Amino acid sequence: MRRLFRLLKVDHIGIATESIEEGLSIWREVLGLEVDSTEEISAQGVKVCMLAVGDTHVELLEPLGPDTPVGRFIARRGEGIHHVGYGVANIEEALATVAGTGIRLVDERPRHGSLGASIAFLHPADLGGVLTEFVQSPSLA
Amino acid sequence: MRRLFRLLKVDHIGIATESIEEGLSIWREVLGLEVDSTEEISAQGVKVCMLAVGDTHVELLEPLGPDTPVGRFIARRGEGIHHVGYGVANIEEALATVAGTGIRLVDERPRHGSLGASIAFLHPADLGGVLTEFVQSPSLA
Repeated sequence: MRRLFRLLKVDHIGIATESIEEGLSIWREVLGLEVDSTEEISAQGVKVCMLAVGDTHVELLEPLGPDTPVGRFIARRGEGIHHVGYGVANIEEALATVAGTGIRLVDERPRHGSLGASIAFLHPADLGGVLTEFVQSPSLA
Repeated sequence: MRRLFRLLKVDHIGIATESIEEGLSIWREVLGLEVDSTEEISAQGVKVCMLAVGDTHVELLEPLGPDTPVGRFIARRGEGIHHVGYGVANIEEALATVAGTGIRLVDERPRHGSLGASIAFLHPADLGGVLTEFVQSPSLA
């Protein structure tokens, strides 16, 4: 197969948490990470806190209510890793390549993510049980 | 609190998989990652394949049998993320710091990990549901 794209880096590790405030008492005060940004994304029912670690991030995800994707995840599996986001140079090309191999896409087309990024999720059942996200940063666009 | 240590980077994301060979058909051929090393660690009942992605790694973990830690994990939760390893400069200091805050340690003292590293696991119940590993690379020792 001609190499059309490859994962460039781990962009972030998304961790579902009941409370960002409580999570920060460990991530910031014990483990020494610094908060890069906090935003509330009402359309997805989630509050997001990005903590820098090396050249990647821990992304804490707090549900805005029980009937949201992250709220349902916590009810079903408990707190823990929700997904992993990988940086790609060209998200359209990345999605076309993986779709061509039969991997199912959650998002057929890229959509807007945090901080100006274009993002798309792939189905965990086709990726070893891991909900996987492609992230094209605005600086690479 | 005086800052004794901080997480330096994501060293690896450990993913439990039924078959490294099948996993590689996606990670290597579709997603473009390269294999850095493969080793069998009989004492822990696991075969480990490290794939480079940026300055971190995806670590595929294949159980050598059902009655092993990774085999039991897959039986209980299915394939997926098993743990996250973070680089620290001084693992003794890191363990002393987290133990002092009440976080439970799986390993009271560092033990030998892959490729000459010193490693220790922390209890997921005290770290937002994520089995967390400290890794002191031999180059930092």
